Amino acid sequence: MKIEAVDFFYLAMPQVTTEADGSQDALLVRVVAGGHVGWGECEASPLVSIAGFVTPMSHGVCRPVAASVLGQTLDSPADIARIAAEVEYNSMDLLQAAHTFSGIEMALWDLLGKARGEPVWRLLGYRTSYSKTPYASQLFGDTPQDTLRGGEVARRDGFKAVKFGWGPIGRGTVKEDTDHLQAAREGLGPDGILLVDVGQIWGEDVEAAAARLPALEEAGAVWLEEPFHGGALDAYQALARRSSKVKIAGGEAAHNVFMARHMIDYGGVGFVQIDCGRIGGIGPAKKVAEYAVARGVTYVNHTFTSHLALSASLQPYAGLADHRICEFPFAPKPVAREFTANHLDRDANGEVAAPEAPGLGIEINLDAVRKYLVDVEIKVSSRTLYATPELA
Amino acid sequence: MKIEAVDFFYLAMPQVTTEADGSQDALLVRVVAGGHVGWGECEASPLVSIAGFVTPMSHGVCRPVAASVLGQTLDSPADIARIAAEVEYNSMDLLQAAHTFSGIEMALWDLLGKARGEPVWRLLGYRTSYSKTPYASQLFGDTPQDTLRGGEVARRDGFKAVKFGWGPIGRGTVKEDTDHLQAAREGLGPDGILLVDVGQIWGEDVEAAAARLPALEEAGAVWLEEPFHGGALDAYQALARRSSKVKIAGGEAAHNVFMARHMIDYGGVGFVQIDCGRIGGIGPAKKVAEYAVARGVTYVNHTFTSHLALSASLQPYAGLADHRICEFPFAPKPVAREFTANHLDRDANGEVAAPEAPGLGIEINLDAVRKYLVDVEIKVSSRTLYATPELA
Repeated sequence: MKIEAVDFFYLAMPQVTTEADGSQDALLVRVVAGGHVGWGECEASPLVSIAGFVTPMSHGVCRPVAASVLGQTLDSPADIARIAAEVEYNSMDLLQAAHTFSGIEMALWDLLGKARGEPVWRLLGYRTSYSKTPYASQLFGDTPQDTLRGGEVARRDGFKAVKFGWGPIGRGTVKEDTDHLQAAREGLGPDGILLVDVGQIWGEDVEAAAARLPALEEAGAVWLEEPFHGGALDAYQALARRSSKVKIAGGEAAHNVFMARHMIDYGGVGFVQIDCGRIGGIGPAKKVAEYAVARGVTYVNHTFTSHLALSASLQPYAGLADHRICEFPFAPKPVAREFTANHLDRDANGEVAAPEAPGLGIEINLDAVRKYLVDVEIKVSSRTLYATPELA
Repeated sequence: MKIEAVDFFYLAMPQVTTEADGSQDALLVRVVAGGHVGWGECEASPLVSIAGFVTPMSHGVCRPVAASVLGQTLDSPADIARIAAEVEYNSMDLLQAAHTFSGIEMALWDLLGKARGEPVWRLLGYRTSYSKTPYASQLFGDTPQDTLRGGEVARRDGFKAVKFGWGPIGRGTVKEDTDHLQAAREGLGPDGILLVDVGQIWGEDVEAAAARLPALEEAGAVWLEEPFHGGALDAYQALARRSSKVKIAGGEAAHNVFMARHMIDYGGVGFVQIDCGRIGGIGPAKKVAEYAVARGVTYVNHTFTSHLALSASLQPYAGLADHRICEFPFAPKPVAREFTANHLDRDANGEVAAPEAPGLGIEINLDAVRKYLVDVEIKVSSRTLYATPELA
């Protein structure tokens, strides 16, 4: 097959707010080759990622992503890896390229899987798609009482694991944080898996983070996520060494395999969190999963948008039975919920798994795409480089 | 002062080719505040960086760069640092943000320096702007004879240092590379400073790079630049440990201070190369320079475009007398040459220095900006988010 077309669809809620909710918009990617259609999704800032595809070349290693994708042969996983390597080299100086390509790469896997009648995880070499324990992400409440109620709601909804994050945590005293952590545990019940995300609040201040370790341990938190700036590897390592039971988690911003490896090797994380919509897609994420296994670290997906992104994010570690925790878009905005026709619903045990259906196993609801479609036009020197494409 | 306006001007040669020459286009940034005007330049892919400024918000930590810049107070270096921190946090998930902000940050320094009648390096705390030894960058020739002639030309032109890069190097046998290195030395003469750049050719293959160390050492190369992918820190470290005289250089792709620190701490480089047009501007570059001093590593600018970018790139280490080597745009394309009205010419000793004039000390040639201006229009939901601004 030859890659005939790559089209982008920018979807958004009518109102996008400053809340830390990544499901308010989406950049859907459609790839056509050999009569098949594949779909993928780039994480964050649709307009900028579109520009990364169509931008005029700056020089030999700052080419638009399109230059390394359109017209390429797509017959095997090796072709996807080859195209990815070409993008990485030819767009070396184009920072956004990794985000732009991530959605395309997912779509290439989806398309190849559909053409072969195989789920992507099987193309990746796995024999089984193991169930994962999804966690519901939610913000810490404004008060400990609100946090407690949030935990209760998630438990009643059948979640065995809950991640609390952002909000007031880390912004006040250790005592205030301790109260929130105890409330989270109380709401979740004694057996719930408690995860905590502080959204880089401490920059690189190891002491500020370490001061919360006793409370995190007492509340039985499994991980503390992103205590520091994603690049503050020394701080991650220092904190990891000071924590006995609570593991440190991070890695969501990694935009290549090396950055994820650094988080493991130099940052000392116990959980490496990979967003397939940023790291360059499913192939690089699978490499990180292999690396994590080799280093005794647990792989986790990072997914806060649609069930298309969720399916893609499950593929790289679908076959790793012992890597069980999974981020699950618990209450996405309507745009993210509606643009897929089917969803990865939790089974009777409250678990989810990468689907058995060919490709990514997700159908697109074109009516919903139309409903949320944002019209974009980019002209350079009076030539239209991008106009929102036809859907049908 | 309040930041009243930030305007982008996309300049390009009529024909942009696939050669590895970053001076074929430019993204010039103009900032207006308190009746003063400052100018800066973003490195690489103008359209994508413009999109990073105007893009609609995706969520609270994926805001357009504009949201953290326009209307801000600008009265001191601390204001620039505060704005930079806001961009970093509020645009955490917008990968291109660092490149977009880099040119803005330069312009903020230029403007503040003009308002105070001080050169930027003095605002950074330096008392003296020391002269640097510029090196002329050129490609390895197709044959060793061509390489030799390239070295001769640079020597006749008064350059004490020359960097050869890319072209055939690393693509053939060790013997072929050895011939090129010997030819480079011969062309340069026995006293010339020889620098070698291989543009990531060996991926993460330490053995392939190590096989060239004897020839590099025999030719008296001071550094071997970017033997590996910019993220392959283990490979950098392994090669650095195996090399006695030839230092390893890298860091140009760093888009935050942490990445540059990783190159020093985990990569073991002897020279850290920082592009102010990528790392977020002059402030973060100065932090890297301080870090390099503390770790016994030599700071070098990475600059392949205009003399505006050159002046900006000299400021962070202007006051470091012992950090003497400087990348110098030796034969930039006309667009990069013409859009500045003045240039940092070499003095009688063949050296260059950050200017004594206020700000960055570079005047813009508006006629040349008009001549090379590329018209851009970006519309989202029928609203024009960007149209090439008026120059006057």
